[in-house]
Amino acid sequence: MRVLVLNGPNLNLLGTREPETYGAKTLNDLETLMMERFPEVEFTFEQSNHEGMLIDSLHAARGYDGIVLNAAAYTHTSIALRDAIAAIEVPTIEVHLSNVHAREEFRHRSLIAPVCRGVISGLGMTGYILATEALLHPDAT
Amino acid sequence: MRVLVLNGPNLNLLGTREPETYGAKTLNDLETLMMERFPEVEFTFEQSNHEGMLIDSLHAARGYDGIVLNAAAYTHTSIALRDAIAAIEVPTIEVHLSNVHAREEFRHRSLIAPVCRGVISGLGMTGYILATEALLHPDAT
Amino acid sequence: MRVLVLNGPNLNLLGTREPETYGAKTLNDLETLMMERFPEVEFTFEQSNHEGMLIDSLHAARGYDGIVLNAAAYTHTSIALRDAIAAIEVPTIEVHLSNVHAREEFRHRSLIAPVCRGVISGLGMTGYILATEALLHPDAT
Amino acid sequence: MRVLVLNGPNLNLLGTREPETYGAKTLNDLETLMMERFPEVEFTFEQSNHEGMLIDSLHAARGYDGIVLNAAAYTHTSIALRDAIAAIEVPTIEVHLSNVHAREEFRHRSLIAPVCRGVISGLGMTGYILATEALLHPDAT
Amino acid sequence: MRVLVLNGPNLNLLGTREPETYGAKTLNDLETLMMERFPEVEFTFEQSNHEGMLIDSLHAARGYDGIVLNAAAYTHTSIALRDAIAAIEVPTIEVHLSNVHAREEFRHRSLIAPVCRGVISGLGMTGYILATEALLHPDAT
Amino acid sequence: MRVLVLNGPNLNLLGTREPETYGAKTLNDLETLMMERFPEVEFTFEQSNHEGMLIDSLHAARGYDGIVLNAAAYTHTSIALRDAIAAIEVPTIEVHLSNVHAREEFRHRSLIAPVCRGVISGLGMTGYILATEALLHPDAT
Amino acid sequence: MRVLVLNGPNLNLLGTREPETYGAKTLNDLETLMMERFPEVEFTFEQSNHEGMLIDSLHAARGYDGIVLNAAAYTHTSIALRDAIAAIEVPTIEVHLSNVHAREEFRHRSLIAPVCRGVISGLGMTGYILATEALLHPDAT
Amino acid sequence: MRVLVLNGPNLNLLGTREPETYGAKTLNDLETLMMERFPEVEFTFEQSNHEGMLIDSLHAARGYDGIVLNAAAYTHTSIALRDAIAAIEVPTIEVHLSNVHAREEFRHRSLIAPVCRGVISGLGMTGYILATEALLHPDAT
Amino acid sequence: MRVLVLNGPNLNLLGTREPETYGAKTLNDLETLMMERFPEVEFTFEQSNHEGMLIDSLHAARGYDGIVLNAAAYTHTSIALRDAIAAIEVPTIEVHLSNVHAREEFRHRSLIAPVCRGVISGLGMTGYILATEALLHPDAT
Amino acid sequence: MRVLVLNGPNLNLLGTREPETYGAKTLNDLETLMMERFPEVEFTFEQSNHEGMLIDSLHAARGYDGIVLNAAAYTHTSIALRDAIAAIEVPTIEVHLSNVHAREEFRHRSLIAPVCRGVISGLGMTGYILATEALLHPDAT
Amino acid sequence: MRVLVLNGPNLNLLGTREPETYGAKTLNDLETLMMERFPEVEFTFEQSNHEGMLIDSLHAARGYDGIVLNAAAYTHTSIALRDAIAAIEVPTIEVHLSNVHAREEFRHRSLIAPVCRGVISGLGMTGYILATEALLHPDAT
Amino acid sequence: MRVLVLNGPNLNLLGTREPETYGAKTLNDLETLMMERFPEVEFTFEQSNHEGMLIDSLHAARGYDGIVLNAAAYTHTSIALRDAIAAIEVPTIEVHLSNVHAREEFRHRSLIAPVCRGVISGLGMTGYILATEALLHPDAT
Repeated sequence: MRVLVLNGPNLNLLGTREPETYGAKTLNDLETLMMERFPEVEFTFEQSNHEGMLIDSLHAARGYDGIVLNAAAYTHTSIALRDAIAAIEVPTIEVHLSNVHAREEFRHRSLIAPVCRGVISGLGMTGYILATEALLHPDAT
Repeated sequence: MRVLVLNGPNLNLLGTREPETYGAKTLNDLETLMMERFPEVEFTFEQSNHEGMLIDSLHAARGYDGIVLNAAAYTHTSIALRDAIAAIEVPTIEVHLSNVHAREEFRHRSLIAPVCRGVISGLGMTGYILATEALLHPDAT
Repeated sequence: MRVLVLNGPNLNLLGTREPETYGAKTLNDLETLMMERFPEVEFTFEQSNHEGMLIDSLHAARGYDGIVLNAAAYTHTSIALRDAIAAIEVPTIEVHLSNVHAREEFRHRSLIAPVCRGVISGLGMTGYILATEALLHPDAT
Repeated sequence: MRVLVLNGPNLNLLGTREPETYGAKTLNDLETLMMERFPEVEFTFEQSNHEGMLIDSLHAARGYDGIVLNAAAYTHTSIALRDAIAAIEVPTIEVHLSNVHAREEFRHRSLIAPVCRGVISGLGMTGYILATEALLHPDAT
Repeated sequence: MRVLVLNGPNLNLLGTREPETYGAKTLNDLETLMMERFPEVEFTFEQSNHEGMLIDSLHAARGYDGIVLNAAAYTHTSIALRDAIAAIEVPTIEVHLSNVHAREEFRHRSLIAPVCRGVISGLGMTGYILATEALLHPDAT
Repeated sequence: MRVLVLNGPNLNLLGTREPETYGAKTLNDLETLMMERFPEVEFTFEQSNHEGMLIDSLHAARGYDGIVLNAAAYTHTSIALRDAIAAIEVPTIEVHLSNVHAREEFRHRSLIAPVCRGVISGLGMTGYILATEALLHPDAT
Repeated sequence: MRVLVLNGPNLNLLGTREPETYGAKTLNDLETLMMERFPEVEFTFEQSNHEGMLIDSLHAARGYDGIVLNAAAYTHTSIALRDAIAAIEVPTIEVHLSNVHAREEFRHRSLIAPVCRGVISGLGMTGYILATEALLHPDAT
Repeated sequence: MRVLVLNGPNLNLLGTREPETYGAKTLNDLETLMMERFPEVEFTFEQSNHEGMLIDSLHAARGYDGIVLNAAAYTHTSIALRDAIAAIEVPTIEVHLSNVHAREEFRHRSLIAPVCRGVISGLGMTGYILATEALLHPDAT
Repeated sequence: MRVLVLNGPNLNLLGTREPETYGAKTLNDLETLMMERFPEVEFTFEQSNHEGMLIDSLHAARGYDGIVLNAAAYTHTSIALRDAIAAIEVPTIEVHLSNVHAREEFRHRSLIAPVCRGVISGLGMTGYILATEALLHPDAT
Repeated sequence: MRVLVLNGPNLNLLGTREPETYGAKTLNDLETLMMERFPEVEFTFEQSNHEGMLIDSLHAARGYDGIVLNAAAYTHTSIALRDAIAAIEVPTIEVHLSNVHAREEFRHRSLIAPVCRGVISGLGMTGYILATEALLHPDAT
Repeated sequence: MRVLVLNGPNLNLLGTREPETYGAKTLNDLETLMMERFPEVEFTFEQSNHEGMLIDSLHAARGYDGIVLNAAAYTHTSIALRDAIAAIEVPTIEVHLSNVHAREEFRHRSLIAPVCRGVISGLGMTGYILATEALLHPDAT
Repeated sequence: MRVLVLNGPNLNLLGTREPETYGAKTLNDLETLMMERFPEVEFTFEQSNHEGMLIDSLHAARGYDGIVLNAAAYTHTSIALRDAIAAIEVPTIEVHLSNVHAREEFRHRSLIAPVCRGVISGLGMTGYILATEALLHPDAT
């Protein structure tokens, strides 16, 4: 099973800033964590601050079995990402580290959620694990 | 570990209507599924169509280790539920069977999400499983 | 033919207050009126000030041939009632005694109308009679 | 008793298009239906696609005992029709064939409802019958 | 003189949570306080988390001389409570412990204030005392 | 204890117009009433139709023990008054003679309420008495 | 000097309804009044309930010295009238009998005012006289 | 007959700036013009840039026969002026030199118009003349 | 092939006003242009300032092969036109001479676009030519 | 004559997905089609999923004779693209394959249309052909 | 060179309250600072809590070379100030001590910015220095 | 002291277009100007039309002493840039050449201002000089 884990803008800074808030774990730690937890999954990990690069990555994932997507700030502004997700027809789960609903008003609207299978937010890195589980076991069995 | 699984209005009909859409599984099936998956958890399962009953149930859960809450339609209209969750200070995860963001505009706003730890939507009964996992393993380890 | 006549909050006060405005007829009078007018219909009459009770009543009416529903104030605030009506799949006609469009702005929006077969408002108790007729003779013949 | 049955824009096409949706009955059929059902009523039937003609018809109906008005699209845009109804002081019941609340957002607002006695929508041609009944028997007796 | 003191959702938790914020006084303490302060008043004290129960209580208070109502979260969402207050025609004063205008946007709108005689907010339990005084001495003498 | 009673625009006309509505009591009567009721309080009474004068008065009241403020129309339009109240850090209670929530939409928003301790509205001159009591006895004892 | 006095929908009913409110004067009376007051002006008087007729009349008035226009309800809904006024480049003064700002919200917006020279409202038939004066003596001399 | 001509903020600059746009006439010229035109009227002319002064002037005009008021920018922001006009119960006509509807969006709303008898805008100094005429001859005779 | 070219309000003035802006070409010129360019098409040319006439024309075009429609101002206000287009099921292309998106806000919304096949705006009379081409060669070949 | 044909995000997938909906033609097919149709035009074809790349391409086209731009999703979100088009002062025609007005609300607003010469939408690849024609023959001759 | 430094409501309290937040510097300190920094400038320093006084001051500054204006709260509510600035045609730079965009929503809109040359906010007293520099050296040289 | 001067989309065209409006100075000129004015500052100058590149540049500037940022059009649309600024915790001053408040409505909102130290707009290239000064001398000394 092939899964793309795609992280959006500013997530490259994870773990290297405000560790008391976001924790000391980096994107690398997340990747290790996921590979250890799901050895049966063939992961592709990508991160970009460029909206266009994220679209390119999504296009390249056509044929994958699933996508775990944290589009960060672009979640709320990018119709282009939405169109890309709708076009490739790969089951995609939207993930957010923080509880976006407890933050600024403009983070409450997700432009991509309607074309994703589901959304997981507020659960930190656990959210990525759960999203992968949901891709593996969509029937709750 | 004690966990309250609280289901809101109309969820008692689960499995008995439109099975082609919502699946043939009932709330009883969900309960069985959760108990089998997490034998180490002491679950309390409740469902009510009454907003006041849901508040009473939340109050009664003070001291529990976690709550999995599908407030259904009340998610979008009940400030009273929000206040109850904020008052009892038990980690609560909001769950929705369907992807609410792909439905009517008025289902896009959650009044309770800001006081929950996180939100999982669109993943069917799997969402309840994942929410319980997140309560058990909040540190993604 | 079985028909549920379901009245919502504050309608129990009908006839006992402001008779110069709302008339002197009570809910009992309405029930008598309907039974006399439609002896061939098996009516169930219920009234509650509790949103949850109204939902329970709707669930209990699965299998009925029709519902005449005056949800009163909940018309404008209850997504839960809307979901209940949609779930039970019984032809439902929304009725209002007064002309809600001639009243406050917040009474102009009906959350339940989109899942009802039709709406009759402003015609007093006559509206209940007409709604029953519409359930009996949907084809205008 | 004299009653004006006034139909607005595009209703002249009734029965001749999309019969699987709107039924095969034409405005003529409606007129026949109403005359047969209420032989005691002296009906005037008019239809126009012109907002101004509808206003003229309403003016001409001063002194009538009632009006059954399906203003169709003008329901949502015409303040002029509203003013005409208010001016002539003839009991008017707004009728819609379809359930306007289940359609586009801009069909949810009725500019004329506040000056009508009541509204009946979503019940097809039956709505015209019921509206006439309401004019004949406003006291539900 | 008979006065109903009616408290809405989550107020049963008063004094038992976050005492540093809300103080250590419970609803019982409030009741004692009010009875001691106004021995000449015959108080009825009720609290419910159920919107429907609050409506029932209001109906039961027809004929009382006044009502002190803290509808809590329902203040902002319940048209049904508004209708109940309007129907019973008992002088009602809306009370809030906290200054609702200094909290979330959705707490700034009160659906019930327009049908109450007045509003007192932000003054803690003192607000209940003042509301009772206002019922006793409406003429400031 | 020193308390400033500050009245805003048009309140100088009190008692001299529409006595059937606003009563025959003037601002002078109010002052007499308050001094008699609270002989232990050292009151300063001021009224102005000038927003700037009201700000000046608030500044001059730094060091007072409390302020009873009826900003009248400026309540809804003056950010400058809000800033003045926030700056002087004297407990301030907002008072309105009429129930502003039962009037025009633009009177429902108070720009100053969020920086006041509390709000009392709709209780006529009694509101000033109650506000003073609340300043004297903030602990409801 | 040639002036078109153009009246819109429902103004043909003037004087024949609600005389206690609108007065007993008809459009004919208005015409007589204007001709007597301004014998030096060559008036053309037209009234129509048809938006299109009003546009046609405006087109026909190209070359006139001025237009007194009471578009009534179309004031608030007709972009087509606005475009017609802008196209013909004849000084046009918008007149309303009643004070539209003291009526429903939807009467507060005028789509045609921005392309008129000025607006006079709330002054009854006097408004037509004043508008004509303004066309005759635009320089206040 | 006594008439107050009250001009608001920045109108003291009239005639001394941008004469090509606003004309070379000053407020003094306007006063001379009005006195010459209406020798039978006892005019009081006042201008202030202070909202409070304008309110004071209105209060002082109680008992006058009419007011011609150009509140300029305060037209759109001052509820206090509105309340003053409503309180003094003197017929007041709102005047604007320019066509406010052809300017910025925020100049389209008048807070004072609903309590004035009428509005005249866009007709320059002629507007003041016409407003005075309307006060003198409200019956168009 | 039969094509209706339908022009809305004020377009009859084309070429005779502001030629420096709109050009000197009239509707007649447009018709000649189109007939010369597409001799194989049987054109019907109509123009009206009446919304109802435009609807009538659309109804009369049932069975045509295509419609080129410039509804001008009615584009933004007429739901009735929208319903007519939807009813007749003839491929319709919306055309505007000017770039409506570069004009007033209220010209940005088209009520009829959703039921047209496509929209061409801002290209002057060329737009009519291109619309006809699109009707003739919908497959870009 | 030099023309840039610039396609935005996700348009690289054209023809390779959902062929039943979007047709089987690819961007390459479009390019071939355009070159065959307009052999006299020197085309530059570019596509990018990167907003910045599209801006770069527009800058590089300064001096071209025209631009055919399908900005896809960026149409609705990119002020930067708008500024680029305004800056380079090359006639630009906005093209959309689908009828954006018949899709989601957020696709109805075009940020770039006001700075383009015109817009063509809903006509599939034909739209590109027509846009090129409009650039070649802006005078409809 | 003559420059008016005009400070609005509540700025007279600067330095005497919350020194840990706003610093210990007073308006006097600011004046000293500015005079020392720009000895070549002839400064006029004024402060008022009265909107009308600020307008008067602006009028009095006609003929000055520049104005540094901190209108504080009036920035967001005063159209009258805006009109005054526009009328006097003296280059004006809007200054705010704090970063208004990081505060309440209602502080994000400036009514006066559109008629100022520029805006400097969030830089404390440095903002006044920079504004003066910008008046002295508008060409960045 | 190290300062990043970061310019956003379309600013690379500076000086090469519309010199009568934007002046003849290019970005190179700006850089020379800044280096000459502040020889003690170690400047890094970057410009990009790519939102992602701007984010990358901001990340690379962690550890710098300050940032002068003109995000141009992205100011109003990019939450991602806002998050980047917040993450790197380097004092950032937002600069705009033109007075954005005097332009289109959508340029009035800055998504990045709340996380910047301050904002300078409308002062042309002088704004960059002043921003640098503010970074060097934040205490106005």
